[in-house]
Amino acid sequence: MLSKGGCPKTMLSIKDALEVLEGKWKLLILFSLSGGPKRFKEISREVVGITDKTLSKELKHLETNQLVKREVFDTFPPKVQYSITEHGMSLEKVLDELHFWGLLHRKKIIGK
Amino acid sequence: MLSKGGCPKTMLSIKDALEVLEGKWKLLILFSLSGGPKRFKEISREVVGITDKTLSKELKHLETNQLVKREVFDTFPPKVQYSITEHGMSLEKVLDELHFWGLLHRKKIIGK
Repeated sequence: MLSKGGCPKTMLSIKDALEVLEGKWKLLILFSLSGGPKRFKEISREVVGITDKTLSKELKHLETNQLVKREVFDTFPPKVQYSITEHGMSLEKVLDELHFWGLLHRKKIIGK
Repeated sequence: MLSKGGCPKTMLSIKDALEVLEGKWKLLILFSLSGGPKRFKEISREVVGITDKTLSKELKHLETNQLVKREVFDTFPPKVQYSITEHGMSLEKVLDELHFWGLLHRKKIIGK
């Protein structure tokens, strides 16, 4: 596909994707949720280094883009749970490729 | 791979990748350069919306991570040219998947 380098239409769809997934946290949150629904504190423990303020903001952004579903259960105290949507699961291949590339990059640069 | 949801080792390699590629510009710059070596102003024209200050900062970051090569030619005035490295080209599949997902997302959310 890189042979299409610079093609404005391809550039546009990559830009669309990057605008939704911008920053280093959103895809990590989605990866954490791909293991099953979780509560706020559970995500916060898994996504090492994220602050509660950022996690809260990122979850709202992911909800707006229909990548994450937030559910409130009528218990006492109320239980709030986050899960990945079908649309969120469609990012599987993106996560796969980032995982493979992350391994390669660590070997090449960080592991030197 | 999402069946490995939350696996700490996989999370780490995704985080490595996202830390290098953070933001919405770096991958767009690499995509632009995948069409062939370019001068600063040519990249700036292709990556619509980027400021010169940001482009300059991002190019330096990409050079540090061996994704982009900067060459100065001894002409008058000197010509500076940027090209994508082999390591940069290894991001092809990441860009492919982002492109496909961007199309899907536009159809689902933006195109509504």
